[in-house]
Amino acid sequence: MLFVFGHQNPDTDAIASALVYASYLTRTGTPALAYRIGEMNFETPFVLQAAGIEAPPRLPELAEGTAVALVDHNETGQSVSNLAQLNVTHVVDHHKLGDLQTNTPAMLRFEPVGSCGTILLRLYREANLSVEPLEAQLMLSAILSDTLHFRSPTTTEADREAVEFLASVAGIDDVASYAMQMFAAKSDLGDTPAEQILAMDYKEFTFGEGDDAQRWGLGVTETTNPGYVLGRQDELLAAMRRLKDKEGLAGVMLSVVDILEEHNETLVASEQEAAVVLGAFGVQTEASRASLGGMISRKKQLVPALEAYFEQQG
Amino acid sequence: MLFVFGHQNPDTDAIASALVYASYLTRTGTPALAYRIGEMNFETPFVLQAAGIEAPPRLPELAEGTAVALVDHNETGQSVSNLAQLNVTHVVDHHKLGDLQTNTPAMLRFEPVGSCGTILLRLYREANLSVEPLEAQLMLSAILSDTLHFRSPTTTEADREAVEFLASVAGIDDVASYAMQMFAAKSDLGDTPAEQILAMDYKEFTFGEGDDAQRWGLGVTETTNPGYVLGRQDELLAAMRRLKDKEGLAGVMLSVVDILEEHNETLVASEQEAAVVLGAFGVQTEASRASLGGMISRKKQLVPALEAYFEQQG
Repeated sequence: MLFVFGHQNPDTDAIASALVYASYLTRTGTPALAYRIGEMNFETPFVLQAAGIEAPPRLPELAEGTAVALVDHNETGQSVSNLAQLNVTHVVDHHKLGDLQTNTPAMLRFEPVGSCGTILLRLYREANLSVEPLEAQLMLSAILSDTLHFRSPTTTEADREAVEFLASVAGIDDVASYAMQMFAAKSDLGDTPAEQILAMDYKEFTFGEGDDAQRWGLGVTETTNPGYVLGRQDELLAAMRRLKDKEGLAGVMLSVVDILEEHNETLVASEQEAAVVLGAFGVQTEASRASLGGMISRKKQLVPALEAYFEQQG
Repeated sequence: MLFVFGHQNPDTDAIASALVYASYLTRTGTPALAYRIGEMNFETPFVLQAAGIEAPPRLPELAEGTAVALVDHNETGQSVSNLAQLNVTHVVDHHKLGDLQTNTPAMLRFEPVGSCGTILLRLYREANLSVEPLEAQLMLSAILSDTLHFRSPTTTEADREAVEFLASVAGIDDVASYAMQMFAAKSDLGDTPAEQILAMDYKEFTFGEGDDAQRWGLGVTETTNPGYVLGRQDELLAAMRRLKDKEGLAGVMLSVVDILEEHNETLVASEQEAAVVLGAFGVQTEASRASLGGMISRKKQLVPALEAYFEQQG
């Protein structure tokens, strides 16, 4: 039995793609089950409820050598902590290839598209496997979530085409309205502690090489209600500074992305991050906040700009 | 324009798959050309001549950031020396995932099958692209070469099915006879210097971790005429020892694989390698030669056994 899971701080793509890939593998002869390796954000429970299914369970402790399939990630730092002891036999991902290595030849499927859901739909088509309405709704949700309903610059023609097909199979006539409900659910943070808001879509990256290498933490909060998040700026900054100290990070930033206006207001933990933001983006930070405009994709815009900046410095 | 190439010391899979993948990419809208990054063995010119085409040219020096596609390898040590400065946008491979990283999300296609040719045929089918007779003959040759016409334990059902289909498209009625001609061409070493025989299908591997890590060089000579190669044992051992000194390797071995008898006679450079062979395979070395029986696949048998041995030692 193959254990399928997405990254830490799972988003809808990580959860939905684990469920769909497990279903695909099982239906094509490799029994598999979906798991998660962290708490879900507020969007994913809405998606699961709309689809009428339970959340995948937490991944149990796995014995050395257990066969696992990764979706939506491949950096070991974003995966389960004992990944090096496990046997990665399958990976479906749309991120750049990081530090993963496999013990034996594996089944890897990486494509530069907006969501793992889009790659999974290709797998169904290649296998001439019918897409069930539940599978379609999950893949659809994954793509809408990761591409912010095509607003993200990571969006490709394949994502648009997949959504059109999947919506018809899932019986969702008004895709825009469904996407808005997803984003509203994600934005309904209520009295969520600042630590949890920061952790919800948070990834660490190493910039620079060798002795100059620096570990940064980059959080993103995608919301239809940026005023609510930015209204809690002081709490969030305090949480960012605590995290930075605790983890010994060189920098911590939290980008508050207004999904509808496609605008990024980024909070920075200190003057150090402000200097990097000025160098990498040419933007002045005021009162711990920098307006990064349309730079709304961490993967395609923020991280490449930071990488280029640190490469120049190195 | 995308530059497509296989590994150093290219075998028929590395050359034929580069040619076919370049053709596939070009026909599906990404103009690409095939190259090679080393001298071919004696099998590949026979294959190219049978197909009526020229060998791909040597890869020129590529400027930083040039887009490249890798076939049949992914370890940076087996690729072009300045790979880290290039932009890897595509990889098709059937080896385990090694130390490759990409700068941006890329198109990666890895499957645990006997040859890259088998994966390429899948790509044609998925794209509903007709397979031209020339492309079929090249993919067929790649699979026959890498699987030793299904004798290698790396062979999968997908390889067998692909060969049956490709032979019919290529118009090759007697596959066994064609494969024998390939293997005979490969075995016709004439007065090839011992260094060149050793280099022809040679790969380096790192065993163990951290301070205990050791770099080994493992050559394979697949032949229908093992007596000829083993008859030059003294010359070959001298070449192995020179290579070991020059490259500062911890070990050098050359496996002479009798394709027809599926038998491996391995030459070892010194007592050090003999001790490892005893530990890893339980086989005593006599007069610098160890009979490793049916262990004829470096990828699936020799390297995993050596890895397991060094892991136990570590």
